[in-house]
Amino acid sequence: MMPFIDFEPVGRRAPCTSGETILEVAQRAGIMLNATCGGEGICGHCVVHVMAGTVSPPNQTEEIDLGLNRVNDHWRLACQTKILGDLRIHIPPESLATAQRTQTEGRNISTELNPAVRCLNINLPPPNISDQRSDASRLREALALARPHIPLSVLQTLPKELRTNDFHVSVFLRDSTVVAIRPSGTSALGFAVDLGTTKLAGYLVDLTNGETLASAGAMNPQIAFGEDVMARISHSMSKPEGGEQLRTVIVAALNAMAGDLCAKINRSPSDIADAVVVGNTAMHHLFLGLPVRQLGLAPYVPAESAALDIPADEIGCDLAPGANVHLLPNIAGFVGADHVAMILGSGMLDHEGIVLGMDIGTNTEISLIANGKHYACSTASGPAFEGAHIRHGMRAGPGAIEKVLIRDGQILLQTIDNQPAVGLCGSGILDLVAQMHKAGMINSRGALDDSGNNPRVRPGSRGAEFIVISAEENHGAEITFSRSDINEIQLAKGAMRTGVNLLLQKAGVQEQEIEAVFIAGAFGTYLDVQSGIDIGMFPRLEKERFVQVGNAAGTGARLALLSTEKRKQAVSVAHRVIYVELTTEKNFPALFAKSLMLGQV
Amino acid sequence: MMPFIDFEPVGRRAPCTSGETILEVAQRAGIMLNATCGGEGICGHCVVHVMAGTVSPPNQTEEIDLGLNRVNDHWRLACQTKILGDLRIHIPPESLATAQRTQTEGRNISTELNPAVRCLNINLPPPNISDQRSDASRLREALALARPHIPLSVLQTLPKELRTNDFHVSVFLRDSTVVAIRPSGTSALGFAVDLGTTKLAGYLVDLTNGETLASAGAMNPQIAFGEDVMARISHSMSKPEGGEQLRTVIVAALNAMAGDLCAKINRSPSDIADAVVVGNTAMHHLFLGLPVRQLGLAPYVPAESAALDIPADEIGCDLAPGANVHLLPNIAGFVGADHVAMILGSGMLDHEGIVLGMDIGTNTEISLIANGKHYACSTASGPAFEGAHIRHGMRAGPGAIEKVLIRDGQILLQTIDNQPAVGLCGSGILDLVAQMHKAGMINSRGALDDSGNNPRVRPGSRGAEFIVISAEENHGAEITFSRSDINEIQLAKGAMRTGVNLLLQKAGVQEQEIEAVFIAGAFGTYLDVQSGIDIGMFPRLEKERFVQVGNAAGTGARLALLSTEKRKQAVSVAHRVIYVELTTEKNFPALFAKSLMLGQV
Repeated sequence: MMPFIDFEPVGRRAPCTSGETILEVAQRAGIMLNATCGGEGICGHCVVHVMAGTVSPPNQTEEIDLGLNRVNDHWRLACQTKILGDLRIHIPPESLATAQRTQTEGRNISTELNPAVRCLNINLPPPNISDQRSDASRLREALALARPHIPLSVLQTLPKELRTNDFHVSVFLRDSTVVAIRPSGTSALGFAVDLGTTKLAGYLVDLTNGETLASAGAMNPQIAFGEDVMARISHSMSKPEGGEQLRTVIVAALNAMAGDLCAKINRSPSDIADAVVVGNTAMHHLFLGLPVRQLGLAPYVPAESAALDIPADEIGCDLAPGANVHLLPNIAGFVGADHVAMILGSGMLDHEGIVLGMDIGTNTEISLIANGKHYACSTASGPAFEGAHIRHGMRAGPGAIEKVLIRDGQILLQTIDNQPAVGLCGSGILDLVAQMHKAGMINSRGALDDSGNNPRVRPGSRGAEFIVISAEENHGAEITFSRSDINEIQLAKGAMRTGVNLLLQKAGVQEQEIEAVFIAGAFGTYLDVQSGIDIGMFPRLEKERFVQVGNAAGTGARLALLSTEKRKQAVSVAHRVIYVELTTEKNFPALFAKSLMLGQV
Repeated sequence: MMPFIDFEPVGRRAPCTSGETILEVAQRAGIMLNATCGGEGICGHCVVHVMAGTVSPPNQTEEIDLGLNRVNDHWRLACQTKILGDLRIHIPPESLATAQRTQTEGRNISTELNPAVRCLNINLPPPNISDQRSDASRLREALALARPHIPLSVLQTLPKELRTNDFHVSVFLRDSTVVAIRPSGTSALGFAVDLGTTKLAGYLVDLTNGETLASAGAMNPQIAFGEDVMARISHSMSKPEGGEQLRTVIVAALNAMAGDLCAKINRSPSDIADAVVVGNTAMHHLFLGLPVRQLGLAPYVPAESAALDIPADEIGCDLAPGANVHLLPNIAGFVGADHVAMILGSGMLDHEGIVLGMDIGTNTEISLIANGKHYACSTASGPAFEGAHIRHGMRAGPGAIEKVLIRDGQILLQTIDNQPAVGLCGSGILDLVAQMHKAGMINSRGALDDSGNNPRVRPGSRGAEFIVISAEENHGAEITFSRSDINEIQLAKGAMRTGVNLLLQKAGVQEQEIEAVFIAGAFGTYLDVQSGIDIGMFPRLEKERFVQVGNAAGTGARLALLSTEKRKQAVSVAHRVIYVELTTEKNFPALFAKSLMLGQV
């Protein structure tokens, strides 16, 4: 009998021949593993975890690339590992090519199940002429709770739900409040949402067992009114109906997402008994229809920072009639509930010792926990790593260059879906800068070596430019990278690094004392950590101290959905965080200037 | 110096000459006192209370009409009483012609002030770069409450209200929930509404001192979708959008009323911090958007009977952003919260011994409190007393015959505004039947004496008919009253009386043991009690045992607005009432047949 490989978490089983490499089988099975070097054992991107089964022993390439500890723990390079029998393989998200990733990936979550809503199956005696109690009284008496509360929205559905189901129903309860009346046996669903400035990630969870049933990503439709937070605040301030426009489109997007997710599993949004939404403070305010004027003007004050439970129907979310939307607490005007969720979802609180957390996006929020104190700040890292403001930049999509390797002056590129190159996405840009710097093509100040030694460097309209791939090499489409593009990356990485350094300063901690760095966010999931270290975006630490936690904010939102304890933890986190306003720190300008340099300084 | 009379509660001062009657002065001053007999001392309708000043001594007419007790207590007939100096006169609503009455009149209310919402003036420190607390945190900390709650609707207004008022504000609080942020010094208003099937009555109350600041009446716009409760339930059942149509028009009417009332006193509906709405069970359900199908079909079950506090914005009521609408509890499908309010507002609970309460309308709800038990029922008395189903019937408006007196075969009529007669309103119809029966023109079975002895009786298309006023007597417009009209009145009074008798039977109480009868409702305010006794609509008791309490449901709503104790009392009333379903009582048909007879039987 032919051996086979079970690939997880994609859930695909593929037959194979003894002696084939894992990479070969994966490629045949349509699983797009990262392999910038084409399976030569050079790039080290095709890392997988062997869960069960027999494979060839690790070779020297693997021991160097992965380190002995990881190799002993069954981490392998797919291109170097030969199959000797049935296998079970786990592919971490960072080893998957972008096309097969979703922006919803995050840590596998496990928490004690203690959701805000529980289900109760009850049978009520139907009314008759000698028992004319109201439907609500009948339900209240059957529930036998101290002070059962039935919101108006639930009362409005009660007579029909009782009669359609012959008075045998599943009651969703939040404390002593009735959230919905559904057919007997219906389980309560939860909806977790990470409301990003650019992207939305949604998860449908079964509140009775904690399983994630479906997930989806979508663009934030508010982009039509402004690309970043400040543009949207301006929009809301400049037009009387501006705030309401922004609110309406995002609520519609979440309703559409909830509908789609439910449709995937043949359920109805009326079964969604609870929701958790996390976003930065501005997204939070715009979603709730809260004014943002005072958030956009000094001293940048939120209307609300506390955790909130808002009736879903008050916001316009079409969930179960009595469902709440829970919002985790905000920390400050520019460090929002999404950072609190990231802190919960990254697992960084479980780590003893000094830990750093970075949620990389248009704004990068940074947390440093050291010696019992928790500092946080926000840096305007900009959209360069999302491909914006870069001449040939693009979002991660088919044809985007996502990995770059320069070996002996040779440029190896990997594009998404192995399509002809169209442009550079964030992880490709980061690799490119790091590899060029390493190869001596860019100096520390970001200047291109235009001495004429490198035939790929030529003068351009925006300073010297580097030919990433020439028209001849790429079916006629040339892709270049200019001095001005490098400058954008310097600004981005400089902002992040300044934030990290200022927090270290505040805490009186040395860089080398950081025991673990948690990198979150869509870009953070797929970037090459070594490239980040190499250009000085990250502290100079062993690669092994870094953990890429994916969409940790989404994970945090799911945790808060599954456990009211996690909600309490979120409140206590938000409460104890010491917010650091970078721009008013007196050595901010000097530190920022220094952080613009490429490489570790 | 000329003496003068102060008329209360209309608040008018009129100069007069010594020796004039009070009626003469009132008429000159434009105050329309009832005077069916034209000031002859015959009708006994112009009863007033002399509060202060000197008048002629009572004559024999007054002693007979009013009784010695009342005369000694300074109750007088305005037409018989001569002025001897400055006077202060109180005119009870039943002595005022309809044009000057409002449907909002009720008992003067006095209750310990304990409203659900209180006001607090606070000064907050404005934010700055070293105090970036959110607006909500700032407010919460200043309030120093255990768990202050700020609803989303209030949060949405918070940043602007704080900044517009330089952080000096009046905070309206319901327990620890913030209801509104208003300019410093603003007092909280309350809005009480009696949601009648036909008419709406609204009151604006100052919650800080209990004063009623303004009141208004209006038609219920749902009339366009059906005249009575069952017609509206049908409308709601027969069309998918039917219920929503009914809900929308009534909410719009209440918003308009709140706006008008506030405009009268230069305030804004945003200052209305609390509202109490009472109506029958169907009106209650339609107002809240609750389904009514199960209310319209046996076994006639309400969706909800408990007291409710609903966020005003959830219903669509434009009050203070965090205001609730409180709904008193319903008793049963056809005995609603308006009856509970009537019980509170009539004062019948303060009366020891056996008391009867009747709230007369299209449905008449009846309560009997006897020996520690409280029985209630509802009777379908129909709209005859509102002028419907009567050939020349009309609502109380200019030209409506509102009082009738037959003396020695002579018919004396009083019309509203002393206009030429247009038709008969409820109190006129009642008088007419009573006076005709007394004069022997109708027998106990309701048959007109068509023996030819009475020149005013002639054959007509709907049986014999009586000429109330001929064309010659009335500028060409003839008004008649037929056998069929009499039949409508018999059905109406029969229904009411059957209800009273069945409750007496349930309680094991004799008619004569009833110590007080409280008559409420618009028609109930202005009817002639003696006429009601004469035709057998009311029990055969001395007239003095009857109390006409006006719109007691509206009064009850105001009490519930001013005192949370009254709300608790309402819950305990609704809880202890024993609802009697008349139609399933086995001697109902026999009793009803007997009750159709005119006169006391």
